[in-house]
Amino acid sequence: MTHHEKATRFFALHQSGSSFLLPNAWDGASARLFEEAGFPAIGTTSAGIAFAHGSPDGERIGRDEMLHTIARIVSVVQIPVTADIEAGYGTGSGEVANTIEQVIAAGAVGVNIEDNTGDPTSPLYPVEKQMERIAAARETAQRMNFPLVINARTDTYLAQVGEGQARLEETIHRGRAYLQAGADSIFVPLVLDPASIQILVREIPAPLNLLSLPDGPSARELFQLGVARVSIGHNAMLATMGLVSHMAAELREQGTSETMKRYFYGFAEGAALFVSPHR
Amino acid sequence: MTHHEKATRFFALHQSGSSFLLPNAWDGASARLFEEAGFPAIGTTSAGIAFAHGSPDGERIGRDEMLHTIARIVSVVQIPVTADIEAGYGTGSGEVANTIEQVIAAGAVGVNIEDNTGDPTSPLYPVEKQMERIAAARETAQRMNFPLVINARTDTYLAQVGEGQARLEETIHRGRAYLQAGADSIFVPLVLDPASIQILVREIPAPLNLLSLPDGPSARELFQLGVARVSIGHNAMLATMGLVSHMAAELREQGTSETMKRYFYGFAEGAALFVSPHR
Repeated sequence: MTHHEKATRFFALHQSGSSFLLPNAWDGASARLFEEAGFPAIGTTSAGIAFAHGSPDGERIGRDEMLHTIARIVSVVQIPVTADIEAGYGTGSGEVANTIEQVIAAGAVGVNIEDNTGDPTSPLYPVEKQMERIAAARETAQRMNFPLVINARTDTYLAQVGEGQARLEETIHRGRAYLQAGADSIFVPLVLDPASIQILVREIPAPLNLLSLPDGPSARELFQLGVARVSIGHNAMLATMGLVSHMAAELREQGTSETMKRYFYGFAEGAALFVSPHR
Repeated sequence: MTHHEKATRFFALHQSGSSFLLPNAWDGASARLFEEAGFPAIGTTSAGIAFAHGSPDGERIGRDEMLHTIARIVSVVQIPVTADIEAGYGTGSGEVANTIEQVIAAGAVGVNIEDNTGDPTSPLYPVEKQMERIAAARETAQRMNFPLVINARTDTYLAQVGEGQARLEETIHRGRAYLQAGADSIFVPLVLDPASIQILVREIPAPLNLLSLPDGPSARELFQLGVARVSIGHNAMLATMGLVSHMAAELREQGTSETMKRYFYGFAEGAALFVSPHR
């Protein structure tokens, strides 16, 4: 598949009834393992990539390091890769456009771009400002003649903006506005209750993307509620960190490796994952 | 601790009776988790780092990418880090010296350097050639006035050179020669039987480093045989790959995340791992 064909394929995975399950990778190994499991596409996770770099989340590792990792992930799989670019690495439309150019050059077929400012006193960009930023992303992709799939994320739930009905209405308002600005789908992390999810599915006229969380609804349950795309965010990465923590404690306290054996992956199988044409 | 003090501390961890257990990290997260578990030092794993980059082992990701990752790992922990530099990224003494300069500049306190050529028809460097390469590493460190801890690895067992008694004798011969050339300790991956291990401990007059393998002797058993330093190589990384593989299969086949919950690490705890002064 060409880059363009991959983007078209990725877009098609969002269409109705597809139950599009998208795992999020943080390095080359996780990307290849998700591909090997049969997923038709993968996303990246900015928090997972930041943690893998030993850094906190929130644009702390910087655009260059993030794009380097995204390009690496794209290069080791054959399936389409969509990139988590946080809030676009810059507040202005010009900075967002610059990021989008580099993301397309890195070989990604889509982006998650969020309205989170990172400033706790004013957690979300005003709707109009975020519309300009999304429009800049769309215009950049069009100028490059590339059918980039833009998944606009709103952090109304993550940042706990407003309460109850007001938060739900703000989410619908933002979702519709971001679609109008050029987004293809809307991503709302941390909305958990089934009634709100059903309202969002009904009121936002585009594929809705939600997160499946270890302690929230499963992907299967979210699809039953009408959610088009379910991703897993940084949760698989956090699970591997938990495993490392348990292996480390056992090794340090008892000098043994029983935890290590539980899900062991053979060296030869590992090496075989990374041969051509996957490099 | 200064860089120099870290190296002195790392050297001291090898002294008799210390039972020095050294876990091997492949990214910033695993490095911080091993530090958090209380280990006094960590090593890197070239295979683990290669796999994390989606690449096979064996100097395929190249010196620059490997050193970038080593520097990143050094920067996120406060404990000493020793670097797996494979066969030194070049056959000649000049290339080894260049690698050693960069490893010290990256902040590592020690290196593993192996006699494996990567060529199956002639798997190990001749002893004299490897002695020159180790001497070049030592001279480079001395010229930089840095007490680099050189762990010379011989792949007589990994590459299955000779058989039985002949392989054991070749290992002793190489171990002694590498010490004479300037190594501080000798690393023999994949020697498993207790009788051979005891002979190596007795016949090589320096700290012996062995690998603890999931299906071989535990670290505790190796220390009881007199081994001074036990490392884990790429095995913790392979365990996380096995976990990802299981999570991916469950997610894809059942749309659920039970495997993910088993060793889950909280997001807030994860974020807290990576705040200053660890960056």
